[in-house]
Amino acid sequence: MKKIAVINGVNLNRLGKREPEIYGSQTLQDLTEMLDATAKTLGVELIHFQSNHEGEIIDKIQELSDSGVKLGIINPAAFTHQSVALRDCIAGCEIKFVEVHISNIYKREQFRHNSLTAPACEGVISGLGFDGYVAALNYLARL
Amino acid sequence: MKKIAVINGVNLNRLGKREPEIYGSQTLQDLTEMLDATAKTLGVELIHFQSNHEGEIIDKIQELSDSGVKLGIINPAAFTHQSVALRDCIAGCEIKFVEVHISNIYKREQFRHNSLTAPACEGVISGLGFDGYVAALNYLARL
Amino acid sequence: MKKIAVINGVNLNRLGKREPEIYGSQTLQDLTEMLDATAKTLGVELIHFQSNHEGEIIDKIQELSDSGVKLGIINPAAFTHQSVALRDCIAGCEIKFVEVHISNIYKREQFRHNSLTAPACEGVISGLGFDGYVAALNYLARL
Amino acid sequence: MKKIAVINGVNLNRLGKREPEIYGSQTLQDLTEMLDATAKTLGVELIHFQSNHEGEIIDKIQELSDSGVKLGIINPAAFTHQSVALRDCIAGCEIKFVEVHISNIYKREQFRHNSLTAPACEGVISGLGFDGYVAALNYLARL
Amino acid sequence: MKKIAVINGVNLNRLGKREPEIYGSQTLQDLTEMLDATAKTLGVELIHFQSNHEGEIIDKIQELSDSGVKLGIINPAAFTHQSVALRDCIAGCEIKFVEVHISNIYKREQFRHNSLTAPACEGVISGLGFDGYVAALNYLARL
Amino acid sequence: MKKIAVINGVNLNRLGKREPEIYGSQTLQDLTEMLDATAKTLGVELIHFQSNHEGEIIDKIQELSDSGVKLGIINPAAFTHQSVALRDCIAGCEIKFVEVHISNIYKREQFRHNSLTAPACEGVISGLGFDGYVAALNYLARL
Amino acid sequence: MKKIAVINGVNLNRLGKREPEIYGSQTLQDLTEMLDATAKTLGVELIHFQSNHEGEIIDKIQELSDSGVKLGIINPAAFTHQSVALRDCIAGCEIKFVEVHISNIYKREQFRHNSLTAPACEGVISGLGFDGYVAALNYLARL
Amino acid sequence: MKKIAVINGVNLNRLGKREPEIYGSQTLQDLTEMLDATAKTLGVELIHFQSNHEGEIIDKIQELSDSGVKLGIINPAAFTHQSVALRDCIAGCEIKFVEVHISNIYKREQFRHNSLTAPACEGVISGLGFDGYVAALNYLARL
Amino acid sequence: MKKIAVINGVNLNRLGKREPEIYGSQTLQDLTEMLDATAKTLGVELIHFQSNHEGEIIDKIQELSDSGVKLGIINPAAFTHQSVALRDCIAGCEIKFVEVHISNIYKREQFRHNSLTAPACEGVISGLGFDGYVAALNYLARL
Amino acid sequence: MKKIAVINGVNLNRLGKREPEIYGSQTLQDLTEMLDATAKTLGVELIHFQSNHEGEIIDKIQELSDSGVKLGIINPAAFTHQSVALRDCIAGCEIKFVEVHISNIYKREQFRHNSLTAPACEGVISGLGFDGYVAALNYLARL
Amino acid sequence: MKKIAVINGVNLNRLGKREPEIYGSQTLQDLTEMLDATAKTLGVELIHFQSNHEGEIIDKIQELSDSGVKLGIINPAAFTHQSVALRDCIAGCEIKFVEVHISNIYKREQFRHNSLTAPACEGVISGLGFDGYVAALNYLARL
Amino acid sequence: MKKIAVINGVNLNRLGKREPEIYGSQTLQDLTEMLDATAKTLGVELIHFQSNHEGEIIDKIQELSDSGVKLGIINPAAFTHQSVALRDCIAGCEIKFVEVHISNIYKREQFRHNSLTAPACEGVISGLGFDGYVAALNYLARL
Repeated sequence: MKKIAVINGVNLNRLGKREPEIYGSQTLQDLTEMLDATAKTLGVELIHFQSNHEGEIIDKIQELSDSGVKLGIINPAAFTHQSVALRDCIAGCEIKFVEVHISNIYKREQFRHNSLTAPACEGVISGLGFDGYVAALNYLARL
Repeated sequence: MKKIAVINGVNLNRLGKREPEIYGSQTLQDLTEMLDATAKTLGVELIHFQSNHEGEIIDKIQELSDSGVKLGIINPAAFTHQSVALRDCIAGCEIKFVEVHISNIYKREQFRHNSLTAPACEGVISGLGFDGYVAALNYLARL
Repeated sequence: MKKIAVINGVNLNRLGKREPEIYGSQTLQDLTEMLDATAKTLGVELIHFQSNHEGEIIDKIQELSDSGVKLGIINPAAFTHQSVALRDCIAGCEIKFVEVHISNIYKREQFRHNSLTAPACEGVISGLGFDGYVAALNYLARL
Repeated sequence: MKKIAVINGVNLNRLGKREPEIYGSQTLQDLTEMLDATAKTLGVELIHFQSNHEGEIIDKIQELSDSGVKLGIINPAAFTHQSVALRDCIAGCEIKFVEVHISNIYKREQFRHNSLTAPACEGVISGLGFDGYVAALNYLARL
Repeated sequence: MKKIAVINGVNLNRLGKREPEIYGSQTLQDLTEMLDATAKTLGVELIHFQSNHEGEIIDKIQELSDSGVKLGIINPAAFTHQSVALRDCIAGCEIKFVEVHISNIYKREQFRHNSLTAPACEGVISGLGFDGYVAALNYLARL
Repeated sequence: MKKIAVINGVNLNRLGKREPEIYGSQTLQDLTEMLDATAKTLGVELIHFQSNHEGEIIDKIQELSDSGVKLGIINPAAFTHQSVALRDCIAGCEIKFVEVHISNIYKREQFRHNSLTAPACEGVISGLGFDGYVAALNYLARL
Repeated sequence: MKKIAVINGVNLNRLGKREPEIYGSQTLQDLTEMLDATAKTLGVELIHFQSNHEGEIIDKIQELSDSGVKLGIINPAAFTHQSVALRDCIAGCEIKFVEVHISNIYKREQFRHNSLTAPACEGVISGLGFDGYVAALNYLARL
Repeated sequence: MKKIAVINGVNLNRLGKREPEIYGSQTLQDLTEMLDATAKTLGVELIHFQSNHEGEIIDKIQELSDSGVKLGIINPAAFTHQSVALRDCIAGCEIKFVEVHISNIYKREQFRHNSLTAPACEGVISGLGFDGYVAALNYLARL
Repeated sequence: MKKIAVINGVNLNRLGKREPEIYGSQTLQDLTEMLDATAKTLGVELIHFQSNHEGEIIDKIQELSDSGVKLGIINPAAFTHQSVALRDCIAGCEIKFVEVHISNIYKREQFRHNSLTAPACEGVISGLGFDGYVAALNYLARL
Repeated sequence: MKKIAVINGVNLNRLGKREPEIYGSQTLQDLTEMLDATAKTLGVELIHFQSNHEGEIIDKIQELSDSGVKLGIINPAAFTHQSVALRDCIAGCEIKFVEVHISNIYKREQFRHNSLTAPACEGVISGLGFDGYVAALNYLARL
Repeated sequence: MKKIAVINGVNLNRLGKREPEIYGSQTLQDLTEMLDATAKTLGVELIHFQSNHEGEIIDKIQELSDSGVKLGIINPAAFTHQSVALRDCIAGCEIKFVEVHISNIYKREQFRHNSLTAPACEGVISGLGFDGYVAALNYLARL
Repeated sequence: MKKIAVINGVNLNRLGKREPEIYGSQTLQDLTEMLDATAKTLGVELIHFQSNHEGEIIDKIQELSDSGVKLGIINPAAFTHQSVALRDCIAGCEIKFVEVHISNIYKREQFRHNSLTAPACEGVISGLGFDGYVAALNYLARL
């Protein structure tokens, strides 16, 4: 069965609690369940991972790549705008990532309009809420 | 039946002919047919429009908004990076747009990383090829 | 009888419908009537033109200039911030223009603070609502 | 009777003497008389003030605001481009100001294209010579 | 017989009328006749097109490319500095263009020193007046 | 008895009247009384000064320095962002200043994030309301 | 009893050892003891935390917020200038933070003048040495 | 007898007291006496003026210009880098000024390398200490 | 025996796997063995450390410094361009570091041309592949 | 007989050897012969000069100007982007120069898009290979 | 007898011929004679040198420094804005230089407002014509 | 025997005399002897060249390349930051260069952090004093 990594970055463990006017009121648990349900219908298996530590996410991506995972969804959250390390990690592993942002980054502060990680990803989906993950999942499952 | 506008901007009439290493070898006709097929399964109706004229696109969006269309997909192509007029048009009409780019704009020239139109749209999908349109369609159909 | 062109740029055909918190709730038709009434009292004749097409506005200004019109009011709207072509057109014709903006452009996004077209115009009036057109009309009628 | 403040900033006491190719050959006295004549026809009273001292202008605006004046015309001259203090003063008082510049600031040095004070004003009129004051006066008298 | 497109952009229909101190006093008609005469001696055929509409120029270039024209001269005029759309159009068609400017763009305002369209063209000739078109024609005829 | 200068800059005489959503509803008089009460408990004497004139503040600081005052609190208000003169004055006198801002300057417009005067001061307190003055007073009294 | 978090960021465990000409010769232990003594007199309880790991600090702040702590002091040290993640964490939790810097950041390298985290905090105290923490503590205890 | 104005700007009344490692240990009084002695030998009369108020300096320059003074030396000190008002004053009066700086402004902070006032002056002398005034005096006396 | 730390930053554990066209096909293990062999001939002892966690590297450098290590080689990899924390850590410890980059950072993206950490290091070697480490080792062994 | 200088700048002596994928495989000798042949047919005489020394080129241009040469072709090569001295030399001599670049400078690194020397030249031809020299020659011969 | 070097940079050998509206109509020979005459009255000896070659000027300055010359006047002309080499040469030799510019560099193009060489010189005199050299000579003779 | 060029740029002939606190007190002669000694042990021959003339260095590099030298060490000194000509020369010859700087360029003025020549070199060594040359020599000898 095709495996797809779902990596959620810093502060996303607090989805639903954190600034709900921006990120909505559903939790990471809700997201996970929704994605697992969709994955089931698509016949793919998801590997979920969330961390507030840049280093742990990099360790995880390296490990997943070494174990043969070829596809992934990543919401780097704030790391999007600060982590060259994550960009290099993605560029240097064998996983094709779709970058997802829950809110539309172009509607927020100027410094959030750019993405350090996006040039290393396949594509970017921004502003569609949780549906952005679903869209990425559908895309990757079809590849 | 719910109507969704599909607006394709400048030079996209030459999809398949134009720089296929960036935009793929399928044509706008192929895209239209694929989207219509998907729309059928989703129970929505698509209104297709392509133009190389900024003004015609703005006229069309205003007209669609006035006729009650509430949802749209837009690939402004090069207008993304030059047209304040299109941004204002989208901001000033009643249509919720998802902005789509076939290629990943973050992998291209620096001036293509920003989008003048994105802050007026609901969200942005970039780099997923024609699948970006499908993802947008699924998203809008579900709203 | 002295003729004064009144050129309204992109999206201004939707005055009253478009973002009324910025542009007010009166329509372009209201504006036209108000200006015609004022023009009558001033003994001048107005030639109204609105288009969402940069090219049509340029064609029109060239045609008006060639037909001997010497004075004009222009609200380039979004073209203010993107159209070198319009700037060159104004600089290259024989019409003295006053540039008008309904809202105060200095209160909006940073990129709207500058005007590409203003250096080619006689002056600029910004933020006085429809009264800005009246002020321009009074000014030009007196010349 | 409605009162309207007319504040002229630094170096404007030398109108007519100072760079007449930019500012014309009429004096501040000429301007004052012309405005008073217009005010009479509009049924409003003008309170004139000119100073080369930023601090005196700020003291005056505060005093006028405290004494109940609600409307004003201000030509901050060079203070336009250097005085955050004046911007904050205008933003913090109860007077609605129209900012006026005799010359078209967009035709001059790059650093004069922006205005620190304009975001705190109702609107801006630039490049219409003394007529800019008249336009502002008409606008305010109508409010 | 080899065909060479000659595309003149916005405001160039007013050559001879428009700012003659910059562009000279000869008209577009003069230019066309001069180029046709030269073409005759070179044994090539010219296809002339001028428009003030970005969209029409793009439509025309696409059409010419589809009809087998392989060479072109383009003076994008103000579009040089604002049109990503034209750049993409040139990059995406099969025509080798030489970009021509009548005046030396490096002697004018700073924003005219760069060219959005030049990276998509074969080369650029600037400042040689109408002779720049002749030089381009000679160059293309020899290819 | 140790003397501490308390210098309030431009527009701060209108505390309580001016933009209370930013600066609170207490007046400069309230601030003065509160600080005097605190000073009493700390056994120090305060010398209060407020002016809307940059020059008067500089004169005052020079005079205080010459009369032997060694410590001071300064809220330069808008001068923070425009006055090299005040920076040089502080750097050139013998008074150790703590700079205080009532609101958090990092939450306001971009140009307010920097401070021209801060490099000449001992430290900066921003965003604690009137308590920022108290904190500065406690700090200086302990020195 | 009211609880106040005291978060010290990267390299602050080496206070007293690290660049004493900038940070003084007292240790983090000295700081902790001094603050605890002060806290006692104020009737509040402090929860101390220091880490060189951005992720651990974020985990800790989330945990403290979830456990009901409402107030905090944070010296993000170098994270001030690099961590969007920490900014988002503070903005997304329920703790009101005062940001403290031992040295005056405006006297140091240009890139230290700005603070990524400050817009998410209540206020900032910079340059008062350890007394900056005391001032923050007094402020928070009074709230 | 030819009259030459000697205008010293903000904080220069504290020469000798203020940062002597930059400005030397001689006072403004010393400078005045030295210049008067030199003036005597050159057969010119000096009119000295110093103020910490931008407005007073502008009033003075206007007054001197109106009274027929044609030559001047000005050390605007910090106003050099902040006062558009002073630049406009100099440009708008009939006095030919040489701008003098005691220290070499190119050896100091980056923002002191530029001069707002210099484009309105005849020339600039920087870094020669008090001798810069003497050089300016000799130059002007010879004109 | 003299001890030299060899710190390898983020993603360098994947040397040989990661983008071999940039970093070569040898592994971190190969590097370690090569350096140990060289160290032996130089009579120095190496302490190797690699981590993908900024915090762990900082903890390690602090610990090494406290244990008396005086010399080090560091390849911060992507941290070079994002970590003020690492710069401050190096500046605040007692270890003299040589910074090494396998590839020539000046041949890569613009943002990699600068180094946040280099100003805190003794020197930088870039572009010599693994030989850069050897050169650093030779240099440090000779000190 | 009319004389035209042909000045080739730094590294152009290595044409044909140097980066042939950019500059082609023909040598400077080939260029010289081709141009001399063309000159013959045009009835003009060429004076060739190449140097890798900025100073020698400036000496030469001054000497040519003093000896009465009125026309020139210059390919400043890398000096285009670094030499204010050459710009001033051209501006200060009596020779009308056409600037030529073999490759299209707009297709290369960003810093090559601008030209320091172009504002002092009559015009610029870029990207036409050796034909650019021929075009310049034809242009100058016709003057 | 005290020796003072007088170094004139690129294109200054053409004084009087080159752009007389900027540099006046007197020649370098005139300047030399005038300075020698002044030097005689001051009892100093001048060593004149002019070159269009940066390298020759650097060789000369090194040689003069090695031969014991301690004072110099330098007009680097265009090298002012391009030569880090000259700056380093001046900083690294034992000669105290005054930098002189005939025209006021602040009245010319923006890129001429800064000086790469000035931070290595004692001071700068700009805009006083040949008198600037005299002023520098007087200053140096007095040292 | 393998030949390696050692090119020293501008002002390096004064090593030991010039700013010894930056460059040390050893002379170029010392460096040459040290490198020759090392070269002997490595079995390679060094060709030394130093010049203060950019043009001479370029002539030399071209000549060396033409004579078959394949390896080189270059310390361009100030040319690093100003010479596009040298960059193009290196890129266009057949010699693999290692760029060496005696001091750590990242510890100096901001404009020295970048290198125009480095992208054309194999790698860069900065801050290791004369040992940087030795390291480069070892590296090249091993190739």
